[in-house]
Amino acid sequence: MGWFATDPTCTFCGIVAGRVRASRVYEDPQVLAFMDIHPAAPGDLLVIPTVHATGLQDIDETLAAHLFRVVHLLVRGLRRSGLPCEGVNVFLADGEAADQTVFHLHVHVFPRTTDDRFRLEVRWQERSRADLDDDAARIRAGLTLRGPDRSP
Amino acid sequence: MGWFATDPTCTFCGIVAGRVRASRVYEDPQVLAFMDIHPAAPGDLLVIPTVHATGLQDIDETLAAHLFRVVHLLVRGLRRSGLPCEGVNVFLADGEAADQTVFHLHVHVFPRTTDDRFRLEVRWQERSRADLDDDAARIRAGLTLRGPDRSP
Ligand SMILES: [Zn+2]
Ligand SMILES: [Zn+2]
Repeated sequence: MGWFATDPTCTFCGIVAGRVRASRVYEDPQVLAFMDIHPAAPGDLLVIPTVHATGLQDIDETLAAHLFRVVHLLVRGLRRSGLPCEGVNVFLADGEAADQTVFHLHVHVFPRTTDDRFRLEVRWQERSRADLDDDAARIRAGLTLRGPDRSP
Repeated sequence: MGWFATDPTCTFCGIVAGRVRASRVYEDPQVLAFMDIHPAAPGDLLVIPTVHATGLQDIDETLAAHLFRVVHLLVRGLRRSGLPCEGVNVFLADGEAADQTVFHLHVHVFPRTTDDRFRLEVRWQERSRADLDDDAARIRAGLTLRGPDRSP
């Protein structure tokens, strides 16, 4: 868990180091992008920090901003690639409870078409304005709390 | 379509302008975050640019990076808020084919718990290394193409 320069047991660190094969699309010293070997759709990209970080709380805001600057760049590349791409989803799972399965932080960037087989199944909920105001106040308070990055 | 300072018919522009009510969590001159009125889970936040932009191709990389810097900040706030949050998903739908339904660019940031009712239904596909290498080459080529942001 947490931030280490590299984790010898981690497949994504192996890709960064060149020990594990990948179809690379973009790289710079901080960020690497490659094709997902089990894509949600052809063209599904994974964008990762080159340091081993488990989750968003394990990278600083500068690296987070750069990671998504590269995501933004790749969306443009996807749309110009000639691969079927009428829309794009960007998805990140931070934590096992959020369906993270590989514990080196990664962002999915995948093309969509109107006739693809991918379906979003979300049961949207209703929430009262009073509840929403209360939620907002709690998150605002969370923003101003000091302490270590990874809180209980 | 495209980038305008504001769109009088857009609900999210109405929230930015203060004409439409929202439970605000974060704001600066470029980015606003507020509670989603139809949350996927309690705590579901929407993070938007304050200018009216339809999709990722309608904002520049500096604004994209800042938008996600704020997403990163809000994930920390969520985890410290006391709201049920064992993990976090970040989701963006860019284009109608990608299930975008409100055409002012927005990022969903929503907390997850191990026992929540949200289920990801993705049929992961197999793709050969040759296909992956070809996909990667096409996207790399797309990255270097010049021309207007919104390509056909
Ligand atoms: Zn790793
Ligand atoms: Zn708008």
